Amino acid sequence: MRMSKVGVIGLGAMGSGMAGSLRRAGHEVFVCDARPGAAEAFARDGGVACANPAELARQCSAIVSVVVNAQQTEAVLFGDNGAAAAMHAGSVFIMCSTVDPNWSIALEGRLEALGLHYIDAPISGGAAKAASGEMTMMTAGKPAAYAACEGLLEAMAAKVYRLGATAGNGSKVKIINQLLAGVHIAAAAEAMALGLREGVDAAALYEVITHSAGNSWMFENRMAHVLKADYTPLSAVDIFVKDLGLVLDTARASKFPLPLASTAHQMFMQASTAGFAREDDSAVIKIFPGIELPKPAV
Amino acid sequence: MRMSKVGVIGLGAMGSGMAGSLRRAGHEVFVCDARPGAAEAFARDGGVACANPAELARQCSAIVSVVVNAQQTEAVLFGDNGAAAAMHAGSVFIMCSTVDPNWSIALEGRLEALGLHYIDAPISGGAAKAASGEMTMMTAGKPAAYAACEGLLEAMAAKVYRLGATAGNGSKVKIINQLLAGVHIAAAAEAMALGLREGVDAAALYEVITHSAGNSWMFENRMAHVLKADYTPLSAVDIFVKDLGLVLDTARASKFPLPLASTAHQMFMQASTAGFAREDDSAVIKIFPGIELPKPAV
Repeated sequence: MRMSKVGVIGLGAMGSGMAGSLRRAGHEVFVCDARPGAAEAFARDGGVACANPAELARQCSAIVSVVVNAQQTEAVLFGDNGAAAAMHAGSVFIMCSTVDPNWSIALEGRLEALGLHYIDAPISGGAAKAASGEMTMMTAGKPAAYAACEGLLEAMAAKVYRLGATAGNGSKVKIINQLLAGVHIAAAAEAMALGLREGVDAAALYEVITHSAGNSWMFENRMAHVLKADYTPLSAVDIFVKDLGLVLDTARASKFPLPLASTAHQMFMQASTAGFAREDDSAVIKIFPGIELPKPAV
Repeated sequence: MRMSKVGVIGLGAMGSGMAGSLRRAGHEVFVCDARPGAAEAFARDGGVACANPAELARQCSAIVSVVVNAQQTEAVLFGDNGAAAAMHAGSVFIMCSTVDPNWSIALEGRLEALGLHYIDAPISGGAAKAASGEMTMMTAGKPAAYAACEGLLEAMAAKVYRLGATAGNGSKVKIINQLLAGVHIAAAAEAMALGLREGVDAAALYEVITHSAGNSWMFENRMAHVLKADYTPLSAVDIFVKDLGLVLDTARASKFPLPLASTAHQMFMQASTAGFAREDDSAVIKIFPGIELPKPAV
């Protein structure tokens, strides 16, 4: 495998794991992060801390962007000390955020105009899988863009789906996954809330559902948080306010109705405005009145 | 294990499998079914065909009722040639239909007044698991009722959940499972429909989602039908019109809001009235306009 000089911008829960995977695979890794000290902390075990995206871009042939949303990606590329103007012609920008697919499609064109390659590459799997290199990437891009980052995607992800020969389908599949994830979390909360309202033991309900046709990945994962009364945000309520919003924006652009996604979005907004915005997304269950949720073990 | 004389009323997809499991376990099985010839067909390989529930009840110490709903259960017990008046004191009625939990709770009292035991025992898992004895039962009942059917539940189900010491929690957990199952089918349809609208390849979307956090048991199972364009009803749209209706009736009794279940119920009613009532429940995807669904392989 060819060894690359690769930059990772954004060292949050996902980005730091992905940068670590690239380092383990033997690539020379350049990192930067808006939070002071984050890049230096990473570089202590190998790699080069950079002060800003431009400084990073000058030293790399590929950049992996793992920031929160499209707005931050715009800043990383086109803001003060942005990467776009500093990237070498023929290098590649790998965009891992969850964004409006139409924005991602447009970004491919904007970068091509600068002589840069682009991979639409949202990620899934959570921090633990990012750290172990076992996460999933939902990618789309032109053949030349894939050629420009040969071996890099596979170094970060156990499963690299190639979903299209131009940008767009990676982000489309990602937001469809978020549609399901969001509806399933809200449905899990609604089902658990009804069980509590009806006097069913929460642990028994969890045991039965996780062994029945009503199960979902999200029910199994998130209702464990509710049973422990642990609303420490692994993924926060406001992430689904954002992601279901992206889903609805995308569908609205072609006037396509999404009855369940719009209902779930309302539930997350209700939870957010009621004061649970930064709690774990399973805290959407707190919108249900007239029930007593499980309490933390003493 | 004690061998029993046990009756099975209702030889549909689930009941015939359960009667077969009881027969394999060595019990003497009496069967009846409203459809002419169904009981005789079953009895050809062992067991006794009965003309009606009363004739069956006179010969058994336990009855397993596997009819469609509460109305049919009322007819089986209290209609013409009904079982209730013919059952021996101390025998047990095992109610496996999906019903309003409050109706099931009341039925326990009505049968107790006749000196009869009652198990609230809805089932889950589908016809194949019923036939192999691998299905799930969600049960509740009094200790004396469980004693009266010792060994029978385990002969029919791989997993027998005991959820309460009186009737009710079996049916409650079952309808909560149906809430999730119904919402997940409708959400799977909504997600797949959005993918088609956005030009994503349906098979690729299925592959990614079934390996991601947006997966559910129902997405994996039912969207396979959509990909094959096979709407042969394993479970029909109208089953979820009924079951989500039961969920909503139960919650309404305590004025409890269920935003997602009510939205999904509307979607199934739309599909039913649009002409898909008797198609597979995955046909709820046909309510989405402006998309072209996968066609059957030629």
